[in-house]
Amino acid sequence: MTASGVIPGFVAVIPAGGIGSRLWPLSRADAPKFLHDLTGSGNSLLRDTWDRVVPLAGPDRVVVVTGRAHRAAVEAQLPDLLDRNTLLESEPRDSTAAIGLAAALLERREPGVIIGSFAADHVIKDNRGFRRAVEEAVAIARTDRVATIGITPTEPAIGFGYIHADGPLEIPGAPNAVTVLSFQEKPDLATAKRYLEDGEHLWNAGMFVAKASVIMRWIRAYDAALADGLEALAEAWDDPARRGPAVDRIWPALKKIAFDYVVAEPAAAAGALAVVPADFDWDDVGDFASVARLHSGGRARDLAILGEAPTVLADKSTGIVVANGKRVISLIGVKDIVVVDTPDALLVTTTEHAQRVKSVVDALHLSGRGDVL
Amino acid sequence: MTASGVIPGFVAVIPAGGIGSRLWPLSRADAPKFLHDLTGSGNSLLRDTWDRVVPLAGPDRVVVVTGRAHRAAVEAQLPDLLDRNTLLESEPRDSTAAIGLAAALLERREPGVIIGSFAADHVIKDNRGFRRAVEEAVAIARTDRVATIGITPTEPAIGFGYIHADGPLEIPGAPNAVTVLSFQEKPDLATAKRYLEDGEHLWNAGMFVAKASVIMRWIRAYDAALADGLEALAEAWDDPARRGPAVDRIWPALKKIAFDYVVAEPAAAAGALAVVPADFDWDDVGDFASVARLHSGGRARDLAILGEAPTVLADKSTGIVVANGKRVISLIGVKDIVVVDTPDALLVTTTEHAQRVKSVVDALHLSGRGDVL
Repeated sequence: MTASGVIPGFVAVIPAGGIGSRLWPLSRADAPKFLHDLTGSGNSLLRDTWDRVVPLAGPDRVVVVTGRAHRAAVEAQLPDLLDRNTLLESEPRDSTAAIGLAAALLERREPGVIIGSFAADHVIKDNRGFRRAVEEAVAIARTDRVATIGITPTEPAIGFGYIHADGPLEIPGAPNAVTVLSFQEKPDLATAKRYLEDGEHLWNAGMFVAKASVIMRWIRAYDAALADGLEALAEAWDDPARRGPAVDRIWPALKKIAFDYVVAEPAAAAGALAVVPADFDWDDVGDFASVARLHSGGRARDLAILGEAPTVLADKSTGIVVANGKRVISLIGVKDIVVVDTPDALLVTTTEHAQRVKSVVDALHLSGRGDVL
Repeated sequence: MTASGVIPGFVAVIPAGGIGSRLWPLSRADAPKFLHDLTGSGNSLLRDTWDRVVPLAGPDRVVVVTGRAHRAAVEAQLPDLLDRNTLLESEPRDSTAAIGLAAALLERREPGVIIGSFAADHVIKDNRGFRRAVEEAVAIARTDRVATIGITPTEPAIGFGYIHADGPLEIPGAPNAVTVLSFQEKPDLATAKRYLEDGEHLWNAGMFVAKASVIMRWIRAYDAALADGLEALAEAWDDPARRGPAVDRIWPALKKIAFDYVVAEPAAAAGALAVVPADFDWDDVGDFASVARLHSGGRARDLAILGEAPTVLADKSTGIVVANGKRVISLIGVKDIVVVDTPDALLVTTTEHAQRVKSVVDALHLSGRGDVL
């Protein structure tokens, strides 16, 4: 393994699910968050993720798990993604099914493989820091542990889950690895401040690295039927004649549950999970306040503009505006505003209330306005 | 003259010009303020004005001065408006030209006539109070004075001009008439507070009542060429063959100047103007803060909605939203917000900054976006 080469025996898995409801009306069922350029990089979050993991795994060793509806969009974003590495879900079954399918299939194709799962819609700019952390995580994974990468908090964030880290581990190739006491849900502000100060807590960035066989073992320990289903699917997957019927029969019946509950937390509780603390930049771009922060970057900029800047006329206004280029948008004297202008829906809120956007989506569901979701 | 009949010898003039730039992007060159329902009454401001003055003058004695471009819209709003009472401007020449043309023409048609000028885009709900004030103003006008109606301030408004009232006058039929010391421009807040407290200042509602001949005399005193032009126009007006050429020749050359400068202020300075203090409700609907106030009325309503309410989803938000019915509009946690959603332009500001909307219009002019004005 060299500083710039691929990591032997390693496959990157990108679960590209999740609409990103708190980014409505930009993110939609048919235009989920991972397909948008939310950082002004010129690339979608998915493409940025691909570009980040390809150097670690190689272009033929990156697997994307996504919905059938997004196949064309994903292929357009990732022209080098191999057909056999595109795993299409007939419907969303949460992260255990997505990662578990990849694990079962990759273990079958390449026994002993180590996989790393990286969300398609997070932002990391420090590729070098990311590589170092993944390399340590792979080293941990070789010991049959589950590895995760925890981000050193830079502020008392209440929008993230936390990892309670414990003492150091002696693992070759993973000098920074520490054991994990527990995973913590999103805290309140007072707790988040305490976490920031005590130096024992890391942001849970949802990145997991482990042998595919180890992941399957934890899934089986949690729910044998779920593991059976995933393995049956994997067994049929590479046979074109059998895949379709297997998906139709098995996928809709799989338990819908998050990977954290099934693998990460039980493994942590059993002392079989280790974390690599990392201090590279990371953001899950969870809401428009986060988009505003990311987009304005380090520049002294009062108003972040996504989209067609020339159509925006702003006077003494701060926050973020997402323009669709079709209309003139004028902002006058609005502070920390969030304006998202799309052809069929308009959102006006503030960065302070950005987390509550999901409640609008829920209300629209209830009021029969699924057409704008 | 009875309490409910028409006022003998009286003609109402409604200058329907003015785009209402501070109500952009709702008000436009091709959809000026007076054509909108800004109060939720179900009628345009123009129609409400018509309905208010017709009982005082009679339907065949109401004259509307408007731009050629608005002819069809005005006729649609006012089906009972007579053709001969529709005075079309080939281009805007400000209020002296508009009211002066009506004065010159009506004096020619009916020597000795008293005219009252009432803006097409103001709001008054107290018809009884309005009638009483107009009746007193007509009584004043019979003495060859210029009469105006001043509104007793209810708050230290900085968006209105003021009338500095003096002592009472003895005029039959106008028991409340007082002389006027001067007209005052829009004041700063400290001055407006002083005006409110001293009891000597009234809001200048831009309503003037006088003999048409008296108005022409004041115009002539100010600018003889302007009076000559208006009288030449009036002389040709009722001859279909001569009107067009006269308009083409004379109208574009008329001095562009406000009626207050030419008639009201000089008459006040000469002691020839009297004001009827009135305490009926009045608003010039000058900006969206005013629209919000008017629209929510006395009801306990946090967010005023103009347009298609069912498409608006608001959570903990106050202010006003103007919906165009085409899109879902979601507001979350925005206070005193102003959102005006039109097909080609969107405005987001606050009631506090509503007066500054005109600056956006100016900026759009300068940047060549006249298409959305």
